Amino acid sequence: MKKVWNLYPGPSILPHEVLVRAQAEMLEFGGYGMSPMEVSHRTKSFDDIIYGSEALLRELLGIPDNYKVLYMPGGGTAQFSCIPLNLMRNKKADYIDTGIWPELAYNEAVRYLDAKYIASSADGGYNYIPKVTPDMVRPDADYVYICGNNTDHGTAFNETNFPDVGDKPLVTDMTSIIGSQEIDVAKYGLIFAGAQKNLGCTGLTIVIIRDDLIQEAEKFVPMMYRYKQFADNQSMYNTPPTYSVYIHYLLLQWFKEKGGLSKMIEDTKKKSGMIYDFVDHSELWNCPVQREDRSPTNVCYNGKTPELEELFLEEAKKEGFEGIKGFGRYKRADQRSVGIRMSFYNAFPMEGAEAFLDFMKRFEEKYS
Amino acid sequence: MKKVWNLYPGPSILPHEVLVRAQAEMLEFGGYGMSPMEVSHRTKSFDDIIYGSEALLRELLGIPDNYKVLYMPGGGTAQFSCIPLNLMRNKKADYIDTGIWPELAYNEAVRYLDAKYIASSADGGYNYIPKVTPDMVRPDADYVYICGNNTDHGTAFNETNFPDVGDKPLVTDMTSIIGSQEIDVAKYGLIFAGAQKNLGCTGLTIVIIRDDLIQEAEKFVPMMYRYKQFADNQSMYNTPPTYSVYIHYLLLQWFKEKGGLSKMIEDTKKKSGMIYDFVDHSELWNCPVQREDRSPTNVCYNGKTPELEELFLEEAKKEGFEGIKGFGRYKRADQRSVGIRMSFYNAFPMEGAEAFLDFMKRFEEKYS
Repeated sequence: MKKVWNLYPGPSILPHEVLVRAQAEMLEFGGYGMSPMEVSHRTKSFDDIIYGSEALLRELLGIPDNYKVLYMPGGGTAQFSCIPLNLMRNKKADYIDTGIWPELAYNEAVRYLDAKYIASSADGGYNYIPKVTPDMVRPDADYVYICGNNTDHGTAFNETNFPDVGDKPLVTDMTSIIGSQEIDVAKYGLIFAGAQKNLGCTGLTIVIIRDDLIQEAEKFVPMMYRYKQFADNQSMYNTPPTYSVYIHYLLLQWFKEKGGLSKMIEDTKKKSGMIYDFVDHSELWNCPVQREDRSPTNVCYNGKTPELEELFLEEAKKEGFEGIKGFGRYKRADQRSVGIRMSFYNAFPMEGAEAFLDFMKRFEEKYS
Repeated sequence: MKKVWNLYPGPSILPHEVLVRAQAEMLEFGGYGMSPMEVSHRTKSFDDIIYGSEALLRELLGIPDNYKVLYMPGGGTAQFSCIPLNLMRNKKADYIDTGIWPELAYNEAVRYLDAKYIASSADGGYNYIPKVTPDMVRPDADYVYICGNNTDHGTAFNETNFPDVGDKPLVTDMTSIIGSQEIDVAKYGLIFAGAQKNLGCTGLTIVIIRDDLIQEAEKFVPMMYRYKQFADNQSMYNTPPTYSVYIHYLLLQWFKEKGGLSKMIEDTKKKSGMIYDFVDHSELWNCPVQREDRSPTNVCYNGKTPELEELFLEEAKKEGFEGIKGFGRYKRADQRSVGIRMSFYNAFPMEGAEAFLDFMKRFEEKYS
């Protein structure tokens, strides 16, 4: 087996232990005489998986009782539509512009309501998190939307830059940070995350929503985009992505066994911290993101020249580090795109981060 | 490992060979140094999977070049919405009422347009396929919708009862029959199928759509419900359910190796035929479905009494036959629900059908 360090932004690395267990149970699991991939969602065996997942997720993230957990298909992009479609009352919503992902969410929201950017860090090429205070929020806005972690720009909302939206429901896309950062669910109206980064594999999206926000949607909202339909049917109105839920369940068990949220946070800080620290002292690299706004999971930096970045990508690949090219396709005309982005999700081992640091050191010696 | 014969309607049994290969490749596949579950959708390795799948599906089902194949999330229920949302022009559509599944599709359609049942077999408790002729179709209908196979009632559209809708696009839900029946794609405007019965596992829906039906949808249609968005982005606008696509790919390879469509059709007929034949000569059982309209994949029948059915379910379970209870929850006030339903998808082995026939014979001897 070829050794690869998977640093892709998502789909991304899974814990070895989870893959080993999925492998062991592929033909038969739990004494049910069939594969978890073959099991009907109308059976006790699948109830054990989906209810077991929810219970573990509640425990690990400290989800209060007045929040529902919904398991939905369609990824974050489906949520970009579901959020306005389900939360609109006054048909106004305020968005915080911190890069491509909140922009895509905004683009969906304008289909249905008056969406407005009330803060933006576009002026800095999205290298910081803008301050949000209650006076900026429109009094009749239905919610305020943020992208909790901006994979492509390496910024994250955190305790120091947390938006103050008064009593408005705060909605956040936590796809690339959930499970790697402190979380106080009660501060949000709605949290969603694609499972494929820190909570499992593709095909499954987790929505954590405060009870009072679950209402009957307007007539034109499709059945599969209705939060109430999922809440009323324990996410099993139709056939759920059963195997993705199963992998989510294995992932959460691993998460707990490994020490839970505090341990994940500690390890994440350590992994990204060593790279940030090196970059900040490097002659070849520069992290354009303001220190207090840096993402713990997605470390972004630029080389002195695009040629240096190309060389770096080539040599990194030779040493088995894959998926670290920044997203040039999101570049705006007036901005240099991010050159390097590496994703340190929970499954990425400390040993890999250390190996990468070692590679960076050798590269620095060779080319500075 | 406990021996179970999985006769569930879906999610359902997968070929043993597919599971064995998925197991073997769980930690690493194709020399890529990672699990197929970890692979980014923006890589050559995933391109090989998704384009390889499409090519195989085109070959196996004989899909003409003027049809696109789309890989979508959300199951059949999402398609119930996508179809009117994408195909509506005059905002009229005609539906054929053959049971619960077309009814659910109809219920979604009325959110967006004037949907009308132009034929129904409700009068017979859905035990037949109603005749459809061009004069029944409204001249300005955008399409005619059928459910190609009615899992819960054991009926199927086939060559003998095929609807004649003139030049209207015919839309069909083939979830529970695709790959087990002759198919002439050119007769349809759109075919869709959840993968979890004959084409893979949950989390993936296959849409086969004629080019000219792919148009820009109205503004209020969510991004992830737009056929054009999927067609323009080779089903990878956002992160697809990568592992479900991978399983689909393995399934199609197995499908081809086992002899392709004609062999699957032959085996399916043989499996269901032996049960239909036994039921038709039994003193305890009765198949209420008209012979020419019987489903080759979902065999439904009733016992003389509900008590007999209960006893049958109990004894079947003891012998390892699981998932054969009919769907009582779909019962209408004036109808007896289907007592027994057994699903003979392609992965269900001939040996299992023979074992079930043997069980039925012994049950008959004991209780008649």
